[in-house]
Amino acid sequence: MNTELWYTEKQTKNHGITTKVNKSIYHDQSAFQTLDVMETAEFGNLLVLDGMVMTTDRDEFVYHEMITHIAMNTHPNPKSVLVVGGGDGGAIREILRYPSVEKAVLAEIDGKVIEASQKYFPKIASGLSDPRVDIQVADGIRHIQENKGKYDVILVDSTEPVGPAVGLFQKPFYEGIFEALKEDGIMVAQTESPWFNQELISQVFQDISNTFSIARLYTASIPTYPSGLWSFTIGSKKYDPLHVDESKLIKHDTKYYHPDMHKALFQLPQFVQDLLIKKGE
Amino acid sequence: MNTELWYTEKQTKNHGITTKVNKSIYHDQSAFQTLDVMETAEFGNLLVLDGMVMTTDRDEFVYHEMITHIAMNTHPNPKSVLVVGGGDGGAIREILRYPSVEKAVLAEIDGKVIEASQKYFPKIASGLSDPRVDIQVADGIRHIQENKGKYDVILVDSTEPVGPAVGLFQKPFYEGIFEALKEDGIMVAQTESPWFNQELISQVFQDISNTFSIARLYTASIPTYPSGLWSFTIGSKKYDPLHVDESKLIKHDTKYYHPDMHKALFQLPQFVQDLLIKKGE
Repeated sequence: MNTELWYTEKQTKNHGITTKVNKSIYHDQSAFQTLDVMETAEFGNLLVLDGMVMTTDRDEFVYHEMITHIAMNTHPNPKSVLVVGGGDGGAIREILRYPSVEKAVLAEIDGKVIEASQKYFPKIASGLSDPRVDIQVADGIRHIQENKGKYDVILVDSTEPVGPAVGLFQKPFYEGIFEALKEDGIMVAQTESPWFNQELISQVFQDISNTFSIARLYTASIPTYPSGLWSFTIGSKKYDPLHVDESKLIKHDTKYYHPDMHKALFQLPQFVQDLLIKKGE
Repeated sequence: MNTELWYTEKQTKNHGITTKVNKSIYHDQSAFQTLDVMETAEFGNLLVLDGMVMTTDRDEFVYHEMITHIAMNTHPNPKSVLVVGGGDGGAIREILRYPSVEKAVLAEIDGKVIEASQKYFPKIASGLSDPRVDIQVADGIRHIQENKGKYDVILVDSTEPVGPAVGLFQKPFYEGIFEALKEDGIMVAQTESPWFNQELISQVFQDISNTFSIARLYTASIPTYPSGLWSFTIGSKKYDPLHVDESKLIKHDTKYYHPDMHKALFQLPQFVQDLLIKKGE
């Protein structure tokens, strides 16, 4: 009988997933976090940071398409785009599908994430060698502060709100993003699970609502993330994703997002919609 | 240090969930399956049949609302409704919200499921004592064969396609449902995970498309089910859920479904939509 290895992640104190591992293929410790890559039987290669699933070969397309296309397709002409975090390169790959893009900046604090993705997730990292991409191994918060009025679209592709990413879920950061965007800019942030992170979602939505004139939330199905349901929150200065001209949306060869779902995404389950009601209303 | 008990379910051969159990509160074996009820730390009481999660206190509302309201709100005047399976009573509870309903028949093959739900899930089973409900501990396939032209809406609230429920995922069963429905009847069946049961979804959709003039599929987020995403397939003789008059949809005090999402539900992720393309097209 063979030895069986299973990766088990407690996604909350009392609940988690467990998935069979064929072999562990990378383990490292950076200045910021622990990195692991394993080959799993169900999801292909799996990237784990500080004991939490970041992405897998099989379901990565959902997260990367869904953090990218709603904002990119809502902005009529995104030329200058920033990804905060996102060292695996998946969001960059999706951004580069838009012919209007002239420059895509990646501000990832941990260079080891970029290296691990290029080596073990070449399909996810494929866009990082594109000449339009500017990779900066840097603190995203500082980058935001130093680049005012520069970006059309900013994506906050962060890890969970513990350790190095705590500041990426706080109001001053969203205010900084507002400043770093052009006068018609739009941002989107990954904002955790509507089942397991309800207080965080409510707080972030309120903070983004108080910073931007337009705030919207949508979700996507990601089986290796806690609860299998993930949320993304948009802050926009001018363009409302719910009121785009659908005939002008760009259709790419994608596996999750398509223009026909663009407006439908905002019809949330009632319990998720209820998280977005401002306190006191 | 206390003893920790965790329930782990292999949802596929190589992947599963694990959830902390406060205590096991019921275990039984019926003529059809093994039944377990446990009190969990994350999801409240958990019903397990043959080693697979059927429902939990915390997320049951999703499955029960979503197997019920789309069909019930598409049919303009559902009076006579059948649930095949569904012994926990959750679908019946949702059906009874519609004032047009005169009779709701439950055809559940395993009386022990009904008893366990009434004892350990009183909120889910609450509708079973309603005078409009006719509980039949009976084989759903036989009930369908013996009741032709009788129902406005039929819900197939089955267990997984192994053991007693295999026949509930086959074309002769859908043909039987067609016969058991009135001339403007509509059915919906739970049809597993778009991530882990793709062949089954394609086959069932093709079978229902070949039996009914209208076939539609939609999904919902259920964290304790495999992949966290679940599908439901509609077969309808006359009323298309995608073309309802939204002003006539009934709004209930529900936690997941609401009329504004009724049409949006059919804008599926591309990889799910691709499962519905007929072979040869």
